[in-house]
Amino acid sequence: MTFAATVLTLYPDMFPGPLGISLAGRALERGDWSMDAVQIRDFAKDKHRTVDDTPAGGGAGMVLKADVLASAIDHARSTNPGAPVLAMTPRGKPISQARIRELAAGPGAILLCGRFEGFDERIFEGRDVEEVSVGDIVLSGGECAALMVLDACIRLLPGVMGAASSGTEESFEDGLLEYPHYTRPVEWEGRTIPEVLRSGDHAKIAAWRKRQAEDHTRSRRPDLWERHVDARDQSASGARHSTKD
Amino acid sequence: MTFAATVLTLYPDMFPGPLGISLAGRALERGDWSMDAVQIRDFAKDKHRTVDDTPAGGGAGMVLKADVLASAIDHARSTNPGAPVLAMTPRGKPISQARIRELAAGPGAILLCGRFEGFDERIFEGRDVEEVSVGDIVLSGGECAALMVLDACIRLLPGVMGAASSGTEESFEDGLLEYPHYTRPVEWEGRTIPEVLRSGDHAKIAAWRKRQAEDHTRSRRPDLWERHVDARDQSASGARHSTKD
Repeated sequence: MTFAATVLTLYPDMFPGPLGISLAGRALERGDWSMDAVQIRDFAKDKHRTVDDTPAGGGAGMVLKADVLASAIDHARSTNPGAPVLAMTPRGKPISQARIRELAAGPGAILLCGRFEGFDERIFEGRDVEEVSVGDIVLSGGECAALMVLDACIRLLPGVMGAASSGTEESFEDGLLEYPHYTRPVEWEGRTIPEVLRSGDHAKIAAWRKRQAEDHTRSRRPDLWERHVDARDQSASGARHSTKD
Repeated sequence: MTFAATVLTLYPDMFPGPLGISLAGRALERGDWSMDAVQIRDFAKDKHRTVDDTPAGGGAGMVLKADVLASAIDHARSTNPGAPVLAMTPRGKPISQARIRELAAGPGAILLCGRFEGFDERIFEGRDVEEVSVGDIVLSGGECAALMVLDACIRLLPGVMGAASSGTEESFEDGLLEYPHYTRPVEWEGRTIPEVLRSGDHAKIAAWRKRQAEDHTRSRRPDLWERHVDARDQSASGARHSTKD
């Protein structure tokens, strides 16, 4: 099955961009995924091809028009049926690795990229659009965010990554940040690889890595740590109460 | 002053990529910022140009070597003096709009992009590297994250955005998500622009937008809301206790 990416943008030339190179690029050539960058302006209603207008109530910038966006989304849905529509916006829900896994397992994704001040709010309810954010920073448009979401999906598609790197032992896959990595040289500028990693004792190495991942997550990302602990407690309590397990 | 971006990557062809187009592209042509994509492989120590090696302690994937990374960083620091080094990694601190503002106000940034399993951990202490994350998802490499960070910086450089869009009334600038936007048509598929925005009463509009931003942040991003309330309380208490203000 081919993962179909449709991007709605005012700058279709930005795609596939970096995703036409390296891992994602080779997967695109092989047909593991497909890329359709659609110009939003093609769905404008007037001869000036207007896509935006001044914000109701005043203020700086321009707002992308709901009627134009709706036509672009309807077109994308007809050519990429079954794929969810995700709008890239800092007002959205932060995208998670779990959501990326769901997307990668599905038929594809329609990514709506804003520019200017943003989208007319009515489009989100009027067209069942999922608002997603990729970080608490403001971009000039949604294009770089869309590239990031697609990159995260593509690396999970079957056959894209070699067996050597299965993508399961990574940050966020178990709700924790990943443990630290080391490689040769054993000593570099007076800093050595932790001895346990050179011990050959696989159980000890696994335990050390788990502790490192936990310590690191607790100190750097108390938000993730809290969720991890909650999930762990819930699953432990679920196991206790279930007669099946 | 020109904001100097140096990217250390195994895929220099990915840059400037989308940043060579639109707002950022025109700013690049004008010389408001400069882009230097440096091939990490050029700093390999052997004739095979090896940049990675197997992880100490075993496991899947390959780890970027500290000695090679150090040489690449040292080179970047010599050509882009004063710029901080940021490594793109999901294990890092989530980048904030405040940090983006700092970067944009400075001489530039050196962005280190990983591939494979990641970096040899020793590089972070050995070379004063800031680990930053742009979202809780795993990418095939740091390149798309670096593009996002640069895009966020470039739009804040003097002269890049027109006066029409000052970039100050945006999500995160006051610790809140932005209020919703609307534009013509007044009625679209039975959905109308909220009446207050058509009232012409600027004080009422400002109050409505503030409440919308607060409600939206509280319901969608309790994490941001908590921080916003803490900051507000602290500044209120600071004002009460200070004799200067």
